[in-house]
Amino acid sequence: MRKNIITVSREFGSGGRSVAKAVAERLGFDYYDQEIIMRVAEESGLAKDVVAEYDEYMSHKNSLLFTLSQSGGGSLYGALSFANMVQMAQTKVIKRLAEKGNCVIVGRASDYILRDREDCLHVFVYANKAFRADRIVNVYGETDKKIENRIKDMDKRRKLYYSSFTGREWGFCHNYHLSLDSSVLGIEGCADMIIKAVETAQ
Amino acid sequence: MRKNIITVSREFGSGGRSVAKAVAERLGFDYYDQEIIMRVAEESGLAKDVVAEYDEYMSHKNSLLFTLSQSGGGSLYGALSFANMVQMAQTKVIKRLAEKGNCVIVGRASDYILRDREDCLHVFVYANKAFRADRIVNVYGETDKKIENRIKDMDKRRKLYYSSFTGREWGFCHNYHLSLDSSVLGIEGCADMIIKAVETAQ
Repeated sequence: MRKNIITVSREFGSGGRSVAKAVAERLGFDYYDQEIIMRVAEESGLAKDVVAEYDEYMSHKNSLLFTLSQSGGGSLYGALSFANMVQMAQTKVIKRLAEKGNCVIVGRASDYILRDREDCLHVFVYANKAFRADRIVNVYGETDKKIENRIKDMDKRRKLYYSSFTGREWGFCHNYHLSLDSSVLGIEGCADMIIKAVETAQ
Repeated sequence: MRKNIITVSREFGSGGRSVAKAVAERLGFDYYDQEIIMRVAEESGLAKDVVAEYDEYMSHKNSLLFTLSQSGGGSLYGALSFANMVQMAQTKVIKRLAEKGNCVIVGRASDYILRDREDCLHVFVYANKAFRADRIVNVYGETDKKIENRIKDMDKRRKLYYSSFTGREWGFCHNYHLSLDSSVLGIEGCADMIIKAVETAQ
């Protein structure tokens, strides 16, 4: 079946967002990334900065388990943490965007949310640590010297976000149809590979 | 750097071997698969059928831990099980084959053995269970009715083989540069993608 929805999950610093943008431009597809935050805010009734805080990165303080432990486990309202409200609204928003077709959606566990649609190609972009550190400093412009710790922290939080949302393991091939190492294939190269996969997919 | 060595790891039933063969033919590369068993037998001094038994599939009875427990932990000779002798010989054979370049090597943890060579492209081919079950019956000609159990057993044994050999987790994206779902991309499609990656890789 023709894949007219592409989800791109990516490691922080891998350049996955640039890959996704290039693919959308080349295919003439809509591109959904940070504007999802605004849509989720509208859907959930939460403030945009609250949604942004819970968007894709989980600290243990945001987890359902933490909220439950704080509420003594007795309050459903307490248990339904901001994180869960954001996840529920994200699910609705992403399913609605997918209905329109011809789009590239970045992150937000969209591979999981859209797992039952046969018109989706799910892609994961990752890279080795040296490539990521270089991009974080020279492309994203971050100046923190402890770049290794920054990568480690972001990986940990995104992993926790993904597993709490999906029950799946972050970075495991079976979550995706195609996984690409951007440190070997390059940013434009990864975009080429995804276009090729769209042409190839059955 | 030009990738003139391609390793193809694959799930049982995914068609990864057919993908690897097609890539070797199209690139005019040497193709190394089951003949590695004969070379490992020569290298290790073990009989070919013993090597074949320990080739890529581990049962718990083949593990170092099991051998140690049987030998009371006192005998280094006992601890150096057939599985470990096969692994040591496989490492030598695969490194020697890689030295010649321009080749496709199937399985046998070759992605791990050759992890420090920059002229390698490491690929993983996998598929959903329905696609694998169909190939196992209709292409490989197996007639066992409990095909789900067969897949489960093979996955478990290959996972154990890989993790005991490498200390890595089987099926995790970071072990490879490119991972392909053959149930979505097709056998020829996966071959196309690998050729594209060889042209693209930096």
